Amino acid sequence: MSYNSFGNLFRFTTWGESHGPALGAVVDGCPPGLALSEADLQPWLDKRRPGTSRFTTQRQEPDAVRILSGVYEGRTTGTPISLMIENVDQRSKDYSEVARAYRPGHADYAYDAKYGLRDPRGGGRSSARETAARVAAGGVARLVIPEVKIRAYLVEIGGIAIDRSRFDDAEIDNNPFFCPDAGTVPLWEAALDAARKSGSSLGAIVECVADGVPAGWGAPLYAKLDSQLAAACMSINAVKGVEIGDGFGVARLRGEDNADAMRPGNDGPLFLANHAGGIVGGISTGQPVVVRMALKPTSSILTPVQTITRDGEATEIVTKGRHDPCVGIRAAPVAEAMMALVLADAKLMQRGQTGR
Amino acid sequence: MSYNSFGNLFRFTTWGESHGPALGAVVDGCPPGLALSEADLQPWLDKRRPGTSRFTTQRQEPDAVRILSGVYEGRTTGTPISLMIENVDQRSKDYSEVARAYRPGHADYAYDAKYGLRDPRGGGRSSARETAARVAAGGVARLVIPEVKIRAYLVEIGGIAIDRSRFDDAEIDNNPFFCPDAGTVPLWEAALDAARKSGSSLGAIVECVADGVPAGWGAPLYAKLDSQLAAACMSINAVKGVEIGDGFGVARLRGEDNADAMRPGNDGPLFLANHAGGIVGGISTGQPVVVRMALKPTSSILTPVQTITRDGEATEIVTKGRHDPCVGIRAAPVAEAMMALVLADAKLMQRGQTGR
Amino acid sequence: MSYNSFGNLFRFTTWGESHGPALGAVVDGCPPGLALSEADLQPWLDKRRPGTSRFTTQRQEPDAVRILSGVYEGRTTGTPISLMIENVDQRSKDYSEVARAYRPGHADYAYDAKYGLRDPRGGGRSSARETAARVAAGGVARLVIPEVKIRAYLVEIGGIAIDRSRFDDAEIDNNPFFCPDAGTVPLWEAALDAARKSGSSLGAIVECVADGVPAGWGAPLYAKLDSQLAAACMSINAVKGVEIGDGFGVARLRGEDNADAMRPGNDGPLFLANHAGGIVGGISTGQPVVVRMALKPTSSILTPVQTITRDGEATEIVTKGRHDPCVGIRAAPVAEAMMALVLADAKLMQRGQTGR
Amino acid sequence: MSYNSFGNLFRFTTWGESHGPALGAVVDGCPPGLALSEADLQPWLDKRRPGTSRFTTQRQEPDAVRILSGVYEGRTTGTPISLMIENVDQRSKDYSEVARAYRPGHADYAYDAKYGLRDPRGGGRSSARETAARVAAGGVARLVIPEVKIRAYLVEIGGIAIDRSRFDDAEIDNNPFFCPDAGTVPLWEAALDAARKSGSSLGAIVECVADGVPAGWGAPLYAKLDSQLAAACMSINAVKGVEIGDGFGVARLRGEDNADAMRPGNDGPLFLANHAGGIVGGISTGQPVVVRMALKPTSSILTPVQTITRDGEATEIVTKGRHDPCVGIRAAPVAEAMMALVLADAKLMQRGQTGR
Repeated sequence: MSYNSFGNLFRFTTWGESHGPALGAVVDGCPPGLALSEADLQPWLDKRRPGTSRFTTQRQEPDAVRILSGVYEGRTTGTPISLMIENVDQRSKDYSEVARAYRPGHADYAYDAKYGLRDPRGGGRSSARETAARVAAGGVARLVIPEVKIRAYLVEIGGIAIDRSRFDDAEIDNNPFFCPDAGTVPLWEAALDAARKSGSSLGAIVECVADGVPAGWGAPLYAKLDSQLAAACMSINAVKGVEIGDGFGVARLRGEDNADAMRPGNDGPLFLANHAGGIVGGISTGQPVVVRMALKPTSSILTPVQTITRDGEATEIVTKGRHDPCVGIRAAPVAEAMMALVLADAKLMQRGQTGR
Repeated sequence: MSYNSFGNLFRFTTWGESHGPALGAVVDGCPPGLALSEADLQPWLDKRRPGTSRFTTQRQEPDAVRILSGVYEGRTTGTPISLMIENVDQRSKDYSEVARAYRPGHADYAYDAKYGLRDPRGGGRSSARETAARVAAGGVARLVIPEVKIRAYLVEIGGIAIDRSRFDDAEIDNNPFFCPDAGTVPLWEAALDAARKSGSSLGAIVECVADGVPAGWGAPLYAKLDSQLAAACMSINAVKGVEIGDGFGVARLRGEDNADAMRPGNDGPLFLANHAGGIVGGISTGQPVVVRMALKPTSSILTPVQTITRDGEATEIVTKGRHDPCVGIRAAPVAEAMMALVLADAKLMQRGQTGR
Repeated sequence: MSYNSFGNLFRFTTWGESHGPALGAVVDGCPPGLALSEADLQPWLDKRRPGTSRFTTQRQEPDAVRILSGVYEGRTTGTPISLMIENVDQRSKDYSEVARAYRPGHADYAYDAKYGLRDPRGGGRSSARETAARVAAGGVARLVIPEVKIRAYLVEIGGIAIDRSRFDDAEIDNNPFFCPDAGTVPLWEAALDAARKSGSSLGAIVECVADGVPAGWGAPLYAKLDSQLAAACMSINAVKGVEIGDGFGVARLRGEDNADAMRPGNDGPLFLANHAGGIVGGISTGQPVVVRMALKPTSSILTPVQTITRDGEATEIVTKGRHDPCVGIRAAPVAEAMMALVLADAKLMQRGQTGR
Repeated sequence: MSYNSFGNLFRFTTWGESHGPALGAVVDGCPPGLALSEADLQPWLDKRRPGTSRFTTQRQEPDAVRILSGVYEGRTTGTPISLMIENVDQRSKDYSEVARAYRPGHADYAYDAKYGLRDPRGGGRSSARETAARVAAGGVARLVIPEVKIRAYLVEIGGIAIDRSRFDDAEIDNNPFFCPDAGTVPLWEAALDAARKSGSSLGAIVECVADGVPAGWGAPLYAKLDSQLAAACMSINAVKGVEIGDGFGVARLRGEDNADAMRPGNDGPLFLANHAGGIVGGISTGQPVVVRMALKPTSSILTPVQTITRDGEATEIVTKGRHDPCVGIRAAPVAEAMMALVLADAKLMQRGQTGR
């Protein structure tokens, strides 16, 4: 976890800016012999792709991924897999305003403070456009863990939570919000339309679940599975909170309520609850791994906000670019990718250390 | 972040089990020339030390830290600093029950599933006793960032939150709960006494704030400051959720409420709010860095819980060891240590890459 | 140093196969604000480019490098720099023979043993073509260490050593062998012509010197400057030996001959000799850093060699591809690149840890 | 490979100074379930121990190793193994001379230049005493690779090479020089006695061979097995050159002589030669892995040498401490340890990535 690389044995490095010619990822350490072609990756990119509904940015990007190395005759060779996605719709608009003044809530000021300069075009490296590269890399990671099924969905937008009693996996891909509860869809639709019209934006909560993770993944103490997931999720643009299992809810539980009791099962223990979200002591227990993350409302809004210029002068700014009224929506496929990337690495590390 | 090491340029590695002869940390990459003696580290260890009130485990450990290398004539030399803490009160009790059956909520089953064997004495490596080594290492980290002031305190125990209007820094060290609100202290005292008497335990929320962090620390995209803090905090025993700034609260904010507006200040911008918790785009902004974490109630309780044995037989278990009724309390000094360790690394990385 | 990444603070990752569509490098951790364009990198690639004389492979590759990220308005931004070189002359020849039988001295068998499969086209990932990516990355590294001047040259081909008394820096770029001794050039020319005609190949020794390295670079004990250089040089295709300063010659020196005495100088000590090659205790001394490496004769030769097929049958093989009669020649620019990459990292690490 | 840690999946970190209270290593990533006690490590330390003959330093150190963590009931648990060796004979002599002036050939000046201060007692961190910790860690590594047999021996001292035709494995432990040729022993004895009497010292060449390494270990391109070995060996005190297989000799071979031909064997190919030293393309071939390293004569000699003081004044220095007349001798067990450490890591990485 240094700069733009993530992972230990299964490691990926991303590169690229919002308005550069392309962006990509290099996946290193992928096991050899896995069947892999662009067709295995493209569906995941299509899920994250902008411009698919009125609730996401109107930027039109085909997000076509190319595999430039690491595959021979349709199989991974164990050498680095270079993935590239060309930017197509990087509009030649005028970025002089963004270059001049800092957009509050965006990384403009922080990048300038860190590096002394920045690429203002569409947020440069700090743009969520980079997550396309993660999703491509995550597609490779999924092939490493075929025993695991990962799905992410939204459980809350603008303070409106789903009704868990109506949770239906099959609904997730039936609406533009990755919403597992059909009854909540019209409420979110209305809230987002209202936000769009008023030039505002809404926050959201994404939940991501991995079924099929065997017990034993995660390397204590500083490559704990939950620690790696927290790092992975917190690195997603706009995420401000991460929780595992009951998460912040555990603070209100008593010890006897929180311990997930066990009974004998056919294949390992049968747990009577999953407050732990599938991870204890930083190691998977064989239960579903459950992570939730909170995403802030995008700071690109039409309401003027007070700010300062690069020269330190007071000014106001209105962000007119193409943006998502709720960045949480397109974060769902990104969360799945990060989960896959963390789990693929944990699997290889576990195999490496223990032979299991 | 691999196995038992954390950090990039400023890196530490911990070792040791709850009932082994000793535990320790090796701090590598510490800048040379810093004044350092055991007396600089012992106060932090004393804050975390068990047995200081009836609200923490009754294990009696002096937690006296020894510096075995890396210091010459009272100054760090730039070579690895080996810190060792001997275990004194590792009681020779009978651990055959814990060796035979898995304690739900503890790492017993997960360690067995991962490694095929485990040290059952006091939880072995999974014991929170390991955090003593982090606190010692954190004491070294603090010397690297003298410009930063870090303080952690509890904001909630057993569902009882402090009253923020009564927040007083000076109170934090005046009570056994690191509670910044004197009015809440008796409530927590009563709740914890009741929990202790009924053989139960309570969850908690710890908040940790770093003042004085300059703008520009944190290395996007996968060594983002918030990502590193999330990994660091989630690696603390019993933590199930981490949030930065408004955290999960951002999910209910609108874009115009969440962006922290800026005005010209004397030394960098003057922010009109700190929803971001001092971090945007993974980089510090110069505002206070605010992180909060939720800790589950310890699973060592007197109520019998259903579980299985190593051989897969059904049984019940009651955990009789010495334990904290609220592990959140002693997590406060650990949270401070992890914050210091992350910030020290971020400072050196920033200096290395940019010369600033 | 894991898989396809090298370096700590200044880190690069390469990808690509000999006959894939492209190859490249991602340089991560480059300081911001450095002037950088393709024109800064192309000259180094041109030095390594194949097909420039009859003494190197006849493969025709323009090796035009493109910068895909990390640069804005001609300056590095501190974000990852993606460099790509398209393969142009990957001939659609028949590789079924190489796919079927292992070429002795090539990585064919080892890759199969490791991965269970391999890309046989031109050696796939094991081809020295990958070094084009290193040379591009090395071009970026040079910008990080403008105080350092690096030059590599050949001191021996096919057992014919240069005459050190005729050493002339200015000659190095005057002949196709990077030979600093004009008198030796015709001898090497004759030897290589003879080797080419008989379908054979010759070994070589490359020396690489860095002037201007200040005292204090290198991080003991396992990121010692000489240790990093040894790793870097040994990773170059065909290198079988690496030495620093007097290298293997020290084994025959006596203690009083080997210690480089010091006298007071204007700017640090004035050394009376440089047996140490500019590195003592793994740290630079301010003297020129001198590394030498031995390169084996390429194993692609016209003489039939006994080998086995993938199925374990006995057979013979003659390698007919386009190859260098002396791979040592084109290793000189690669050695320079690796030296630059190691030094850039050492500089940033030193600055990070010590602020110097 | 950063600072004081080495390795990827199987990683060790050393700490300690020559005259500090102790030194040690933390071995992280060791597979669980291996039988391990101090008795498994002590024999390797005894081989390296000083004071065992008149040809090594007269410092008396029992070098008794203690295991402080990571082992339960005689088996490794998969958690970090902390190894500690107390320093006993760190003589309270006067180091003011060494503190004041730089010993040429020693790391004194370089450490000062890097860190701005140094521990002058016995060389501090730069002392070869640190290699005791490597040898202890190497003892753990050997348990990870029981299929491999490693032996190191000297092949040259003071320019006197062994006669390879008299090579006898059984002789290696029969003399104080790890010399495999009984006929050479008296020659080395005489040369070393003469060097000792004249207050001088001699260089040496150590060869280290690993039998039983299966094909497929080593992770190209930057964790190549030969690259890791080169880094490991060059990190040993006084080593100035490293070569694999024929090493520098390959520079004088022709392609047809250098390729190791293969015939069908019972278990993988039967190689007709081993010019490659068991590594091609950075990956083991199943042949013996052969590495050789050159060690300089120690610079601690009785002949006065010109040098400068910390203040930059000209002076002379004579090093009077206890030292090895030929540091190459005690480097043999260290070379074995480094070989074991590199191979253990390569094995786990290979298993992690490929499952083989």
